[in-house]
Amino acid sequence: MTHLTPLPRIILDPIVRRALEEDFGNSGDLTASILVPEEATNKLTFRPREKGIICGHQLAALTYELVDHAAKYDSTIMDGSAVKKHDVISVVSGPAGSLLSAERVALNFMGRMSGIATLTSKYVEAVKGTKARIAATRKTTPGLRALEKHAVLAGGGFTHRESLAAAIMIKDNHIALAGGVDAALSRIKARADHMTKVSVEVDTLEQYETVLTYEPDVILLDNMSPKQLAEAVKIAGKTKYRRPTLEASGGVNLDTVAGIAASGVDVISVGALTHSAPNFDIGLDALNS
Amino acid sequence: MTHLTPLPRIILDPIVRRALEEDFGNSGDLTASILVPEEATNKLTFRPREKGIICGHQLAALTYELVDHAAKYDSTIMDGSAVKKHDVISVVSGPAGSLLSAERVALNFMGRMSGIATLTSKYVEAVKGTKARIAATRKTTPGLRALEKHAVLAGGGFTHRESLAAAIMIKDNHIALAGGVDAALSRIKARADHMTKVSVEVDTLEQYETVLTYEPDVILLDNMSPKQLAEAVKIAGKTKYRRPTLEASGGVNLDTVAGIAASGVDVISVGALTHSAPNFDIGLDALNS
Amino acid sequence: MTHLTPLPRIILDPIVRRALEEDFGNSGDLTASILVPEEATNKLTFRPREKGIICGHQLAALTYELVDHAAKYDSTIMDGSAVKKHDVISVVSGPAGSLLSAERVALNFMGRMSGIATLTSKYVEAVKGTKARIAATRKTTPGLRALEKHAVLAGGGFTHRESLAAAIMIKDNHIALAGGVDAALSRIKARADHMTKVSVEVDTLEQYETVLTYEPDVILLDNMSPKQLAEAVKIAGKTKYRRPTLEASGGVNLDTVAGIAASGVDVISVGALTHSAPNFDIGLDALNS
Amino acid sequence: MTHLTPLPRIILDPIVRRALEEDFGNSGDLTASILVPEEATNKLTFRPREKGIICGHQLAALTYELVDHAAKYDSTIMDGSAVKKHDVISVVSGPAGSLLSAERVALNFMGRMSGIATLTSKYVEAVKGTKARIAATRKTTPGLRALEKHAVLAGGGFTHRESLAAAIMIKDNHIALAGGVDAALSRIKARADHMTKVSVEVDTLEQYETVLTYEPDVILLDNMSPKQLAEAVKIAGKTKYRRPTLEASGGVNLDTVAGIAASGVDVISVGALTHSAPNFDIGLDALNS
Amino acid sequence: MTHLTPLPRIILDPIVRRALEEDFGNSGDLTASILVPEEATNKLTFRPREKGIICGHQLAALTYELVDHAAKYDSTIMDGSAVKKHDVISVVSGPAGSLLSAERVALNFMGRMSGIATLTSKYVEAVKGTKARIAATRKTTPGLRALEKHAVLAGGGFTHRESLAAAIMIKDNHIALAGGVDAALSRIKARADHMTKVSVEVDTLEQYETVLTYEPDVILLDNMSPKQLAEAVKIAGKTKYRRPTLEASGGVNLDTVAGIAASGVDVISVGALTHSAPNFDIGLDALNS
Amino acid sequence: MTHLTPLPRIILDPIVRRALEEDFGNSGDLTASILVPEEATNKLTFRPREKGIICGHQLAALTYELVDHAAKYDSTIMDGSAVKKHDVISVVSGPAGSLLSAERVALNFMGRMSGIATLTSKYVEAVKGTKARIAATRKTTPGLRALEKHAVLAGGGFTHRESLAAAIMIKDNHIALAGGVDAALSRIKARADHMTKVSVEVDTLEQYETVLTYEPDVILLDNMSPKQLAEAVKIAGKTKYRRPTLEASGGVNLDTVAGIAASGVDVISVGALTHSAPNFDIGLDALNS
Repeated sequence: MTHLTPLPRIILDPIVRRALEEDFGNSGDLTASILVPEEATNKLTFRPREKGIICGHQLAALTYELVDHAAKYDSTIMDGSAVKKHDVISVVSGPAGSLLSAERVALNFMGRMSGIATLTSKYVEAVKGTKARIAATRKTTPGLRALEKHAVLAGGGFTHRESLAAAIMIKDNHIALAGGVDAALSRIKARADHMTKVSVEVDTLEQYETVLTYEPDVILLDNMSPKQLAEAVKIAGKTKYRRPTLEASGGVNLDTVAGIAASGVDVISVGALTHSAPNFDIGLDALNS
Repeated sequence: MTHLTPLPRIILDPIVRRALEEDFGNSGDLTASILVPEEATNKLTFRPREKGIICGHQLAALTYELVDHAAKYDSTIMDGSAVKKHDVISVVSGPAGSLLSAERVALNFMGRMSGIATLTSKYVEAVKGTKARIAATRKTTPGLRALEKHAVLAGGGFTHRESLAAAIMIKDNHIALAGGVDAALSRIKARADHMTKVSVEVDTLEQYETVLTYEPDVILLDNMSPKQLAEAVKIAGKTKYRRPTLEASGGVNLDTVAGIAASGVDVISVGALTHSAPNFDIGLDALNS
Repeated sequence: MTHLTPLPRIILDPIVRRALEEDFGNSGDLTASILVPEEATNKLTFRPREKGIICGHQLAALTYELVDHAAKYDSTIMDGSAVKKHDVISVVSGPAGSLLSAERVALNFMGRMSGIATLTSKYVEAVKGTKARIAATRKTTPGLRALEKHAVLAGGGFTHRESLAAAIMIKDNHIALAGGVDAALSRIKARADHMTKVSVEVDTLEQYETVLTYEPDVILLDNMSPKQLAEAVKIAGKTKYRRPTLEASGGVNLDTVAGIAASGVDVISVGALTHSAPNFDIGLDALNS
Repeated sequence: MTHLTPLPRIILDPIVRRALEEDFGNSGDLTASILVPEEATNKLTFRPREKGIICGHQLAALTYELVDHAAKYDSTIMDGSAVKKHDVISVVSGPAGSLLSAERVALNFMGRMSGIATLTSKYVEAVKGTKARIAATRKTTPGLRALEKHAVLAGGGFTHRESLAAAIMIKDNHIALAGGVDAALSRIKARADHMTKVSVEVDTLEQYETVLTYEPDVILLDNMSPKQLAEAVKIAGKTKYRRPTLEASGGVNLDTVAGIAASGVDVISVGALTHSAPNFDIGLDALNS
Repeated sequence: MTHLTPLPRIILDPIVRRALEEDFGNSGDLTASILVPEEATNKLTFRPREKGIICGHQLAALTYELVDHAAKYDSTIMDGSAVKKHDVISVVSGPAGSLLSAERVALNFMGRMSGIATLTSKYVEAVKGTKARIAATRKTTPGLRALEKHAVLAGGGFTHRESLAAAIMIKDNHIALAGGVDAALSRIKARADHMTKVSVEVDTLEQYETVLTYEPDVILLDNMSPKQLAEAVKIAGKTKYRRPTLEASGGVNLDTVAGIAASGVDVISVGALTHSAPNFDIGLDALNS
Repeated sequence: MTHLTPLPRIILDPIVRRALEEDFGNSGDLTASILVPEEATNKLTFRPREKGIICGHQLAALTYELVDHAAKYDSTIMDGSAVKKHDVISVVSGPAGSLLSAERVALNFMGRMSGIATLTSKYVEAVKGTKARIAATRKTTPGLRALEKHAVLAGGGFTHRESLAAAIMIKDNHIALAGGVDAALSRIKARADHMTKVSVEVDTLEQYETVLTYEPDVILLDNMSPKQLAEAVKIAGKTKYRRPTLEASGGVNLDTVAGIAASGVDVISVGALTHSAPNFDIGLDALNS
């Protein structure tokens, strides 16, 4: 597993605050405030109830910290690490009431992020031995893109355009509205800044061969069969134009991804990594249970 | 399908703004701004690529509105309606560049909400003929609870405690920290306000029979077999104490839910409705394609 | 005095920040910045200028902390404690300029919260010996509900519905719009979730007897005389239907509340606790003055 | 009544949004959403239940607008107008559910602001015939200063320093920390900008006579008797120094204010206007009730 | 002048709100509220007091709109247009008090943005006839990057990396910390996503030749003389490696830029465009003055 | 150099957060996160590349702190101090990746603030020996007024009206709309509060002599020649009315300011201090370079 740089706290802070405000309403945790003595302390372990890839320590730690500065969250394994059922992921200790109040939010973050990391790792595993990278898309949960991209990295995947402002992706309707491929790509050449990559989406090999001649940075081969993709790779290998990065998308699932990767494409982008990853099940138990 | 009251705009507005800010960065949509003539207009249809329950019109409409007041989103069927593949869900028209810039955020909202509504409807269908209601939990996406609860309603389910401040749920660790069942429930009686329901979670029938005598509003039967649940229902039917609402949770999936419902419990709560619903696939096409 | 759990900092933090931003404008405290040497320190005591119940330590402490991490606020008695004129409530020490700049905001918070706690305690005192609880309403200062509910608890009162989303309260116009009592209460039964209490407001004993048969959790007896209230209590005692919590409201003041309580109702809700509590007067003096 | 300029919407908008977010939680108004048919409309009148001065139309109107653009609030009398019990203050019409959901927040704003305006008008009335103005202080509800200052204007009073950044007020501890009156006032002269007024608080006539010689814009005579105040006014009339504005504060209430005003001071500042004004009682009734 | 796509309102809205909140404090415009009759209307023209390039219409229009929906701002020439002294830039009409209250904020936005556009146009003019583009940097005013990048476009320039998240720029300290050029560029190849460009900064031609062999998208030639730059261009022309975009930076001003451009580099980036552009002087006059 | 009181952190905090959010987008610093080992530390010095006045330490320190609590920023000289090229301004040390990620934002703040302080100091120097103060205006960067006013103080200047709510400034159009000088100034006298200064702008000596008789606190002499200004000063010296503060504005630059100051005016206000100050060039180098 490659080491994963933590996300800046400046990004995480408002996300965790909103989650806590949402769960605390105008009164906070009624149950704990009535039942838990203020002086009681506790120590709990996070343990997975299935095997997978862990992600979200920073979020869990920040959740506890924002609820109570006296709560202490210690992760014993890093984001992106594989765990088996019953391993200890982390330990949190401190005022018992605060630990209970923060628990659901911390688990909601970790369950979602670990779910994405785990699903990503399955795709990565499935294409092992090929040159294909697995990449996320912009099909992320509104407001949580930063977290979900981080979780994809934790699962061994790659990210993609981080926003509409970070790269240019030209689709068929852009081309139609711009007045054709030539008009579109000339205008891009004239106006795109030099630090921004340009990707063009194509549906057919004919479009592909036309677009190749404009030397975009990336060509996105949408909904093509592995055979068509392999043909596209072959064409790129012998063209006189600069070889673009070849990205496949559409119809990708855990059954089809190996076949797609075998075509020789560079990148396979998968919306499901972020929009359909099931929650990863983590439990919180008293330390020596 | 019961009619569903729209969510207040005051709740939706900051959520949609954050989603757009996240996707627009510091420059907005580079591709559309370079390629789409400002005077171009367009008209697109939202169509499902699978069958299910639609939810999220308000979010889609607000996304387009916040991107461009001149964009007009018209939904032809209501949140909570069942659709088949290729039905027309809605039509959006207006400035072509704005329609393209808003598309991904609108679809991210609708795909998630319709996914939750669709999954909920499957659980609801599975318990048809029993008295059991399907309810969501607090295992929602941080920051999006309002939307996800709405989607559960759209799927025919029910919501649950909206926050830690809205109801009291007593779990084993609360009881332990409070010094036992009797101490805990006496303190609740003394301090909980009269508009707040009280639920107590039990793992065994022994605990259940003890808790019954305190007459909480709800008893949550956690991880019990259908047989144990049926026994609990039977006990409640003949006790001299006030009959609580009986809620089952734990180990619920589409294979087990009918059996659980057959036990006669009132409510079955399912975290998966919100934390593991796969995206519902919706496409956006030119109007007469 | 029951022990009062502190409010979560996540709730208090934005409230105190806004108060300080409001008072600091674009330049902060001109007077202190020109006149107070940066190295000067000070130590001040908060003392009441009347007797009453103290509330707001957390807010005062957070105000000083947000102005200057080097300021230290130590409360010597807890929120909810009774004080006499000239008692020492708390001591704040640290950089003299910061202490002066934060003083007004800290006092504005404490004066309001202690005022509410003190007024509440008078109502609580007035009903001593009866079973009636004194409860707040949603007639709170916009944006400060969390603080004001906390102050009511500090005064020995109880809170009420924390928001429109936390419980159902059915008034006459709801019933009229829904098409009558029967239509309204059937719809509630069909659609309200199982964790939400239902209260119905009635103005007459006739309405009351009808509503009783629907077994709502709470019946709110609005603007009834002590005699009518006593009659309602009597009826509830012998009905075959589940006995609801009986809440009285309307026309409650310190002169009338004992009479109302004597009727045997469970709860008396009083808007004045939060909307008309006069400020509690606290002074800040040099330590040994 | 002087005409009152409306407050800028940019100031009101975040205040009303916060109030609605606070009351709507994650689900909005459960009761109305279940009971009120979406097509039902209504028309309601705001009527005072006591006599006083109305203030807060803008807040009420904005509350309804933010809840539902189809709700229409029409005020028939202006902020600052006197009303008698049962007068019609305003009429609101539109979707019945939205009107019910917004009602409490709208009334909370109007009740507080009208309460402040009404109390202010009593002080103003009490000093009629003297030259004294009644002014508010910075003892305002945290986060609502703009509204409360507006309400004081509506009641015929005047505002004061709007924040710590808008004027200089020198108190005894500033002077002590600065090293004495002379050091303090020299430093102010050297460093205060030319658009900022300077007020100095004094407790005794001796201090007063010293401070006069520095020609501050305002001298605040704190906790002086009417006799001392009259003496101060007399001294100011014959001094060779520039006559400052003379402001009295401390020990002001509706019983004492006329006597204080008779001393000839220019301004009497009263914290109670904003920190202790009781709510003004307004009811909302169906139009022709 | 190329047509310039407007910035999304979702980006502008919070910026203009903050500016107005900053200028309105807790009371708004005291002067206008006292002096301007509410019914008075006015019509004013924006005219330049010097020649240059206009930018900022959207900000001015939004400022007026947020102050008063009844104010109407009509721009007669587009962002990016050249104007001479005394031309009419735009006309604003509506309630006179609101026009006065909004004036300074509107002018602050337009003066800054037009200043940047005007300075940019001078650099663009200076390199006319060469292939060099003039580009902005990240040396923008904190919080206003979106506006300032837009102003650079209006002046005929190009933007650059919009944030640290949008492209990779490797400087000498990155290389040192990564353990040398080879380690750094291998790690980038292994971990950077395929939609992100990579730029490497070099100070000498030796470094340049080494970096060329790694085929980054861009090489930034820092602080080189025109002669060195021309040599770099020549080397790129005959290397067997992919020709990178060549960007010059450092020591660029209006005197040196033509010489730098003559070297044949593709892009010249200039921090001064955004960090040192003097304000563009615009006046607001009654319409027919 | 007068000692400068630090700005309250409550004002700075949201400004720095926004700047970092703007630069970090959804992913943070891609370059550092890929290239800089998490355990690497660094120590860097801020050194000026020109001579001038330093301002902005608090902003730089807060930028580093918000990026990484482990980063430590130590300033060796105070805000407002003069520096020569190559002096050490400050030293920052800590995790190497965080130092690199925060660098541009820290420098953007310091460059702008030091630029303003430096330009201000030149104006102050130019009027040395006269009684004239150099003051800023409201022509500040939207959202950064607090910082820019602080920078003007650091350069030895003075601030001005901090917002539209902090003082009254009457211009010709206010007077016209109010119905003439007499109507305007009477209304001000009747309605302005006693803690707010009043300034009136005049363009001619005739207007000036009229306005003098109303005894405003300040008269702003707009666009007058030094000769006219001297005449105004002379008139003020012998009038029987209270001598106002005399402020000159319009046509002020480093060439003209001494002449204007020689006229004897009290204050010269200069928009260019904040709207046209060029960036002050600061470099960041490894400690012993």
